[in-house]
Amino acid sequence: MTPPLDLQATIALLERTPAALDALLRGLPSAWTSTNEGAGTWSAFDVVGHLIHGERTDWMPRVHMILAFGETKTFETFDRSGHGRAIAGKSVEDLLDAFAAARLQSLDDLRALHLRPEDLERRGRHPKLGVVTLSQLFATWAAHDLTHMHQISRVMAHQYRDAVGPWRVFLGVLQCTGHSA
Amino acid sequence: MTPPLDLQATIALLERTPAALDALLRGLPSAWTSTNEGAGTWSAFDVVGHLIHGERTDWMPRVHMILAFGETKTFETFDRSGHGRAIAGKSVEDLLDAFAAARLQSLDDLRALHLRPEDLERRGRHPKLGVVTLSQLFATWAAHDLTHMHQISRVMAHQYRDAVGPWRVFLGVLQCTGHSA
Repeated sequence: MTPPLDLQATIALLERTPAALDALLRGLPSAWTSTNEGAGTWSAFDVVGHLIHGERTDWMPRVHMILAFGETKTFETFDRSGHGRAIAGKSVEDLLDAFAAARLQSLDDLRALHLRPEDLERRGRHPKLGVVTLSQLFATWAAHDLTHMHQISRVMAHQYRDAVGPWRVFLGVLQCTGHSA
Repeated sequence: MTPPLDLQATIALLERTPAALDALLRGLPSAWTSTNEGAGTWSAFDVVGHLIHGERTDWMPRVHMILAFGETKTFETFDRSGHGRAIAGKSVEDLLDAFAAARLQSLDDLRALHLRPEDLERRGRHPKLGVVTLSQLFATWAAHDLTHMHQISRVMAHQYRDAVGPWRVFLGVLQCTGHSA
């Protein structure tokens, strides 16, 4: 039995992610932010674009669908590569600004719902996973932030995989085979 | 042949890590910061303690040893669990302050050396790895920050491994087996 989600603790993480990424990435040389792990993989810049796209099309839109339609209407499929338009011609600083603004808007929207603890058990329908709860959606939103911080640290470390020389064996992040491509 | 290290880019990352961890962790409920992945593993709080210990006993002390003794004197072994004293009785906010101060001091110390590009090829002796270069040491310092950001995001995500329900399969960080314990 999973204990009830502490939504305030979930929100505490969600509201910190934009500032954490901003502190890490703003002003950093593009050798860190625009390089990836090889063809078809994402740079830190791409990941921030993906996070913006999630705010606009995934998280709060699904919350609203659960509240409005419950299990009777299936979520739109989230396009995990749908951030092309959000990033074209932008700098990483532009994306950090856009992510911070979009997240603030999402959390304002969430707080305005004044959800009660019992609302967290309301159910929706995921196109691949079937029935899911609002509680699981909120936990996933936070864990999704963390999966992409995990990815960004791995992608950036990858740039130094040769430069560290023999220390490579001690650096766990360089052993990570990339679970969040 | 590894290209020469861009030390300014390395420093750019090193100087951002304390602020990135501060933005993520300060004020966060302790359910996020003081929980770990099970017996004998580290919480985010422990990791920040380890980073402080590295500033005090590992990174710049080894830089100075390379410059003073080259390969003729072996580095002290870094005690990867030596942060007990740095964290006893402290809050995560105390540790974030101490890490920021220690890192600032390290980077002031580094800049005061006015290293020339050719200095980066100077060699030292690691107790387990043998001969290493100053360049490799600097790259490892940055990659070590990233390995612990990678670890912190994984340890925090672990707290939601059940709460996310069926979404677990889509969250890469929850597949990570922990390369940086």
